[in-house]
Amino acid sequence: MTQILNFFAETANYTLCSFERAPRICNYSFRCTVMQMCLDVTELKSACVCFQEEPGPGPGGGLCFADGRRRVDYVLVYHCKRRQSQHRHSVVSNGNVPSQSPTPSRRSTKGDILEAVLEAGLAMEPANELQDKIREEFERGLQEEGLEIEHDKEMRTVRFTRLHVPWSILSREAELLKIRVPTKKTYQLKEKTGLMGVISSFWMKINQPFQPGVPEPQDPRIRVLSQPFSRDKLHLFDIKSKNNFFSNATRGRIAYEILRRTACTQTCQTMGISSLLAKGVYDSAFPLHDVSFAFQIHKGSVSCLSVFKRKYFGEKIGLYFAWLGVYTQLLIPASALGVAVFLYGCFTVDTNVPSQEMCDERLNFTMCPLCDRVCDYWQLSSICSTARTSYLFDNHATVGFAIFMSLWAAVFLEHWKRRQRCLQHSWDLTGMEDDEVRKNELRPAYEDFLLKKQEKKAKNKKKEELASESLSWTDRLPGYCINISSILLMVGVTFSAVSGVILYRIIVFAVMSMNPDHEAKANVRVTVTTTAVIINLLVVLVLDEIYGAIAAWITELEIPKTESTFEEHVILKAFLLKSMNAFAPVFYVAFFKGRFAGRPGDYVYVFKDFRMEECSPGGCLIEVCIQLGIIMLGKQLIQNNVFEIAIPKLKKMYRTYKEEKDGSADDEDKDSKREPQRWDLDYDLEPYEGLSPEYMEMVIQYGFVTLFVASFPLAPVFALLNNVIEIRLDAAKFVTEIRRPDAVSAKEIGIWYNILSGISKFAVITNAFVISFTSEFIPRMVYQYLYSETGTMHGYTNHTLAYFNTSNFKPGTAPHDTDFDRQLRICRYKDYRDPPWSLESYQLSKQYWSVLAARLAFVIFFQNLAMFLSMLVAWLIPDVPRSLKEQLKREKALLMDLLLTEEADKQCTQSHILTEYGPKCFAVHTICNSASGTFIS
Amino acid sequence: MTQILNFFAETANYTLCSFERAPRICNYSFRCTVMQMCLDVTELKSACVCFQEEPGPGPGGGLCFADGRRRVDYVLVYHCKRRQSQHRHSVVSNGNVPSQSPTPSRRSTKGDILEAVLEAGLAMEPANELQDKIREEFERGLQEEGLEIEHDKEMRTVRFTRLHVPWSILSREAELLKIRVPTKKTYQLKEKTGLMGVISSFWMKINQPFQPGVPEPQDPRIRVLSQPFSRDKLHLFDIKSKNNFFSNATRGRIAYEILRRTACTQTCQTMGISSLLAKGVYDSAFPLHDVSFAFQIHKGSVSCLSVFKRKYFGEKIGLYFAWLGVYTQLLIPASALGVAVFLYGCFTVDTNVPSQEMCDERLNFTMCPLCDRVCDYWQLSSICSTARTSYLFDNHATVGFAIFMSLWAAVFLEHWKRRQRCLQHSWDLTGMEDDEVRKNELRPAYEDFLLKKQEKKAKNKKKEELASESLSWTDRLPGYCINISSILLMVGVTFSAVSGVILYRIIVFAVMSMNPDHEAKANVRVTVTTTAVIINLLVVLVLDEIYGAIAAWITELEIPKTESTFEEHVILKAFLLKSMNAFAPVFYVAFFKGRFAGRPGDYVYVFKDFRMEECSPGGCLIEVCIQLGIIMLGKQLIQNNVFEIAIPKLKKMYRTYKEEKDGSADDEDKDSKREPQRWDLDYDLEPYEGLSPEYMEMVIQYGFVTLFVASFPLAPVFALLNNVIEIRLDAAKFVTEIRRPDAVSAKEIGIWYNILSGISKFAVITNAFVISFTSEFIPRMVYQYLYSETGTMHGYTNHTLAYFNTSNFKPGTAPHDTDFDRQLRICRYKDYRDPPWSLESYQLSKQYWSVLAARLAFVIFFQNLAMFLSMLVAWLIPDVPRSLKEQLKREKALLMDLLLTEEADKQCTQSHILTEYGPKCFAVHTICNSASGTFIS
Repeated sequence: MTQILNFFAETANYTLCSFERAPRICNYSFRCTVMQMCLDVTELKSACVCFQEEPGPGPGGGLCFADGRRRVDYVLVYHCKRRQSQHRHSVVSNGNVPSQSPTPSRRSTKGDILEAVLEAGLAMEPANELQDKIREEFERGLQEEGLEIEHDKEMRTVRFTRLHVPWSILSREAELLKIRVPTKKTYQLKEKTGLMGVISSFWMKINQPFQPGVPEPQDPRIRVLSQPFSRDKLHLFDIKSKNNFFSNATRGRIAYEILRRTACTQTCQTMGISSLLAKGVYDSAFPLHDVSFAFQIHKGSVSCLSVFKRKYFGEKIGLYFAWLGVYTQLLIPASALGVAVFLYGCFTVDTNVPSQEMCDERLNFTMCPLCDRVCDYWQLSSICSTARTSYLFDNHATVGFAIFMSLWAAVFLEHWKRRQRCLQHSWDLTGMEDDEVRKNELRPAYEDFLLKKQEKKAKNKKKEELASESLSWTDRLPGYCINISSILLMVGVTFSAVSGVILYRIIVFAVMSMNPDHEAKANVRVTVTTTAVIINLLVVLVLDEIYGAIAAWITELEIPKTESTFEEHVILKAFLLKSMNAFAPVFYVAFFKGRFAGRPGDYVYVFKDFRMEECSPGGCLIEVCIQLGIIMLGKQLIQNNVFEIAIPKLKKMYRTYKEEKDGSADDEDKDSKREPQRWDLDYDLEPYEGLSPEYMEMVIQYGFVTLFVASFPLAPVFALLNNVIEIRLDAAKFVTEIRRPDAVSAKEIGIWYNILSGISKFAVITNAFVISFTSEFIPRMVYQYLYSETGTMHGYTNHTLAYFNTSNFKPGTAPHDTDFDRQLRICRYKDYRDPPWSLESYQLSKQYWSVLAARLAFVIFFQNLAMFLSMLVAWLIPDVPRSLKEQLKREKALLMDLLLTEEADKQCTQSHILTEYGPKCFAVHTICNSASGTFIS
Repeated sequence: MTQILNFFAETANYTLCSFERAPRICNYSFRCTVMQMCLDVTELKSACVCFQEEPGPGPGGGLCFADGRRRVDYVLVYHCKRRQSQHRHSVVSNGNVPSQSPTPSRRSTKGDILEAVLEAGLAMEPANELQDKIREEFERGLQEEGLEIEHDKEMRTVRFTRLHVPWSILSREAELLKIRVPTKKTYQLKEKTGLMGVISSFWMKINQPFQPGVPEPQDPRIRVLSQPFSRDKLHLFDIKSKNNFFSNATRGRIAYEILRRTACTQTCQTMGISSLLAKGVYDSAFPLHDVSFAFQIHKGSVSCLSVFKRKYFGEKIGLYFAWLGVYTQLLIPASALGVAVFLYGCFTVDTNVPSQEMCDERLNFTMCPLCDRVCDYWQLSSICSTARTSYLFDNHATVGFAIFMSLWAAVFLEHWKRRQRCLQHSWDLTGMEDDEVRKNELRPAYEDFLLKKQEKKAKNKKKEELASESLSWTDRLPGYCINISSILLMVGVTFSAVSGVILYRIIVFAVMSMNPDHEAKANVRVTVTTTAVIINLLVVLVLDEIYGAIAAWITELEIPKTESTFEEHVILKAFLLKSMNAFAPVFYVAFFKGRFAGRPGDYVYVFKDFRMEECSPGGCLIEVCIQLGIIMLGKQLIQNNVFEIAIPKLKKMYRTYKEEKDGSADDEDKDSKREPQRWDLDYDLEPYEGLSPEYMEMVIQYGFVTLFVASFPLAPVFALLNNVIEIRLDAAKFVTEIRRPDAVSAKEIGIWYNILSGISKFAVITNAFVISFTSEFIPRMVYQYLYSETGTMHGYTNHTLAYFNTSNFKPGTAPHDTDFDRQLRICRYKDYRDPPWSLESYQLSKQYWSVLAARLAFVIFFQNLAMFLSMLVAWLIPDVPRSLKEQLKREKALLMDLLLTEEADKQCTQSHILTEYGPKCFAVHTICNSASGTFIS
């Protein structure tokens, strides 16, 4: 196991290091790693920050200001447009210099739509100068807030403004933001004893292979007490060096907080960096990668390293990796059981009576032809192999597995809640509210729309007042209309695509069946199915990309107020469209295919000539299985390999090629060419696009794993294999392919949890229907316990086949020529209908209704059982682990102790001062007053 | 409407004031109310606290220490046992003096079991002296903590220790407990405009009748900003008078906090008042009622006054009343629709074809006899009236109403979540954790068990260490075993009771049918049903009380660790047992009655002679309706009137009688008789027993309202009427009948929410089954759309009746003598079976299976539709109202402003001090250091 996983890890690493620019990082970080083998977080932080031992401008060394002491906490990038003044138009229209910015930031791309609106509000004339002025005012504002700023000395096209947050500002903001930091006080966790101890150590051992290369911290049972930072209580905190006390992510967060609230009132009426980015005043704004730290992240794996990822990327991305880790870990038992169910099918196929009967040539069932005129009657025993294959996926164990998977989903969700709760605690997020500020930040597009609306009423309204205003219903109406109609259109497109493939199958099948060649005829079904599934897959892949873009576009039209609303709406729409797209073909095969085909003598036709398709004679389940397997595997392989690896590579190759071509024109820049600094390298990377695509991929996969698990028990295995690679690719992508994202704190994975829980609930229903309607489980049970005379399955096949009198064929639909007896009076077909000789010939028989009732009863039983068990699981697994509860209680008591001790100390000190300085010391007065209670105002 | 409600309010008041001791309070509070008509909370608080204008020991005036200035925040009560030394045994064995304490506190009653254990660990000899010493040490501890104590001057049997919390302690604890208090800063809420404004003002108007006598605050749109209390920031808070800054409830809470953590190490190794209560050192501990305030509460009503209730009782009880208010308000639309559905039934009964057909004598259906031998055949038209009544509850509208009620339940839960969130905000609980301290407090029983266990290992372990230890699995095993077996036993008892009533019905029916008197015979069914339902009701009521006691008892044996665990476990068990008890008879009638009766010629017999009972010929639904109506109404009326009013009254009468009888022996006390102080009066009240009984009653009612609403649409109306009274009775009970409970802060109603949500989910299932299996809705639909030749309901009655050949009666079961033709060959019975002349005579027919399939399909459809709609409702209604979100954002911004301004001020002040006092001022040094960043240590 370990070996396999290590192999994956190495593959991922190899892939990374073979990237164009990656070797540089790998080498450097390797050097850095050798320098300090200890992974202890604090040391890592302090060792790799501002290398006083090698202050030269080495690759990646550019993490500091020129003085080599102050670290760069944030970088703002803009283009100096002096050369472009002759073609100003292109500048104004999108705020970017096309030829110079190979990677326009997402924000400025989005801003394009609004440029016209924006620029209208500003003085049109000297756009460059105006932007320079805005920048100047903004940076002055930053300096007033206390930030330290460094500019490039050389005059290049792409310019960087580097920001450093000094200690005084850090500590003030940390106090205001109530950031929790470790205190000096540590305590020891109780060792688990008894059964729990054995289990937990066993779990640790199992987890080992997923955590390669992570040295144990000195003593995992020693925990550090943490408390919201307060400048009054500096002595409580474990401050080794003021430079490294706050993590990089926190420094970035504080820098962003100041960037967010710095207003720009004279040159333009706006506030915050996001508006400026939208206006094109800045191209991009990001914190810097920290190479040594970054390498540790992509070397590490699965869940345990989420702690490091969090330190580096902030809680939001850390949570994603932690979630992915939990999901992948829990896929292991599901995969194991899935394989076991499959193997059970393999081992018992020979003792299965129905498939034996299907293969028994002596029983001699002559079946009605599969198409009109050109098809012949056929022997049931000819589809023996399909029947046997079908049994592999459609046996008793599958039902148990489906129930297990419902429970699994519940356990997964509950386990994740617990894990999330633990992470909240160990990441010091307890008691802290979500990053409300960032969540509630108004979107520039919204602001501008509002501004435009306000302008008609009164000019020069303050930002504060703006925030309390909101768009009315009528402002949003057009957006909503477009939204609803686009979604309906997209739904229509999806269904058309599915129907198109169905028609393709029906028509091609009919046409190919007319082929007189016997050899070709035999392969018709295989050919048609294969081509159809591949077409399906391609349609799914193409529409997937389109839907992602459309969801973002139509949400933009809705003018959502805040970034978080925007994100949520995009996610919901994208999920709706993408999941429908991915699952619609499977749904069709599972629940609709073959249900409307009619019966011999009364078939249903499309376009008057083509018979509706039926399931293959082996049953619908095996078709679902094939459809699901190919779409799921194909989607994963193609999206992982082509979209996530090949396309970025191609993009980069194209960019290099273009740069080389443009090189001759770029002499000026070449002159000032120097060793690239960290910020140059980072600016070359792709901008961070959010976590949504990563989550979406996983959530759709989760859908494949749970929704149809009753028909394809191997789904978890494939998902597991995919994720083991995915988790490494994602980590690598985040550190080597994209700019460092802002560290956003988040307590929860938000809407994704709701989506997962929705999928899990829906999965119970789909699985219930798959088992009772798609699989043969219920008819078999009903036969065995209601109709079988011996109580065994013998005679089942005969019972499921209805009789048809060949003289009842509609004129011209009977087979033209046949290998069978020309006088054949009776052929069989799969349905529960009364025989031709009964009173109500060809009507649905009593058996049909009893089987239907049993199927429906099973749906009710299964659904309620699974729901009840899920609720039981959710109730039995407490959201907060007992150990964490104990720990919290302990910490609370310790903190109380600490505060009370401090209280007593303070009182003494203060009364001391009081006596010394008398009534003059008025600031202290108030404090003593409240503490000792001796002075009452 | 207003008049009706006022009438209820008056009734409730009348009931209260007619109570023995109540007039005193009513009169006094009336005086108080006249004194200050303004209900404004702050004024109320300050006006009625420590009446400096009438400091004499008037009734209820005893809210202060003897100096008339310091208010009594908490009272500890104990018995002085000097007289009882001769019969010390009774003292030791339960810590109470039986003859002297008519109302032993709950805690000491519980303590009884443990007395033996406890006393074993203490010096056995002079129990009284030991207790005196413990008290002495404990009270010394309290004084060291800063509390001020007053004892009685006279030496009486019942002694009171009164505690006052001075400002210095209040402020210290408030800071440590992070209690949020109002600041001076206020802000104005935005007025709602447009549609929302109209709706909200309309809602206000509707709510008016539920809020009688509540004067509007000056401007409802002005809100006060609140912040956790901090002694460093006293200038920020709106402190008018230090005596009244913290509400009574908060003062009580702080007093309790100190009582909880004060240890007693020398005389006994224990900590906190709850242990001492369990040991019998103190009899009781409670805060004092505040009469004027209390009267306002029971005068007010429904939900709006929950604010006052919260101020007075703390958040936990405030939440209960708020919840009850929301529930009652939301019952109004449900009741209205329920009545509408019933009326729809009344108006359309004449146009209903099936009931017309049943009443049509021309159709002449001769039905098979209802009992063997003695019963005759009968005409279907004879049950015309039952059929018509049945239709009132079983029509199309009922189905719609059932779906509506599922949605209603979802809306109720969501609306409550929002309301709770709003209350959290307006009660300043946002960001505050639940009262963890109180929740995690160890139960004395648990502690003692642990102590006993530890004693074997090592003596004199510290309390701290104890807390981290826990009971092992084996310690709890006996408790769990008893638990499980008792629960199983109780379940058995419930089912036996139900079966007993069934047997009673079967046997009495059979016996009475043999009565030759025709008159009596006609009334058999009515008599049997009535008596059976009344027996059922009595059984339910009796078992309800028993189960409550048993749940508490078996949970005690489980030795739960904390009070909250205990409470939760008791609630779960009591709910399980009580709901089963209340609903089992209804379930039986709805889903089982008549299903196992067999068919003519093949009936099922119990005890060989008695035929299993069938539903009345009008259908099962009407029986469900009767059963439900009687149990629900009976339970409410009897529990409300008898148990909540009559029994306490009887108790009090008995006590008075006993006191008078014992009076002669009590000369000593009589000598020292003086005007009773507030604490004397309060001690005479019943101890507070927790909110569980109140919640339980309402939750069971909620079950009646939702679970079978498809069969009894009038349930919400009855619930509404009950609640309008209940809400007043409860409020009155809390202020006049029981001692003032400790103010416990709670953010949520806890486990009750889960129970409610569980009931709502279960209700969807039961309603689905009631509609499809108990009502005739599905057979009618199936007939109309599948079998009816005209597409109308004509012929439906004939279709539902199967044929029976009278010659197939088992020997001796045919009617002995009959008014009908002796040659009658065919009688009819209600079932879907093949006729005697078919091949499979008396087998379930194809119709049966198709109707069954339709019933099951409807269950699936209804369940999933209701679940989906509920989820949609839950998703559409955001947990946090938009207005609250805006408000929170606004407050956050204001707070940030406030802090930043203060920041700037502080910096100036401090630099001023620094220059003045130089390096000597070392305490200030640290602060300046962090603020200005100029000194780096």
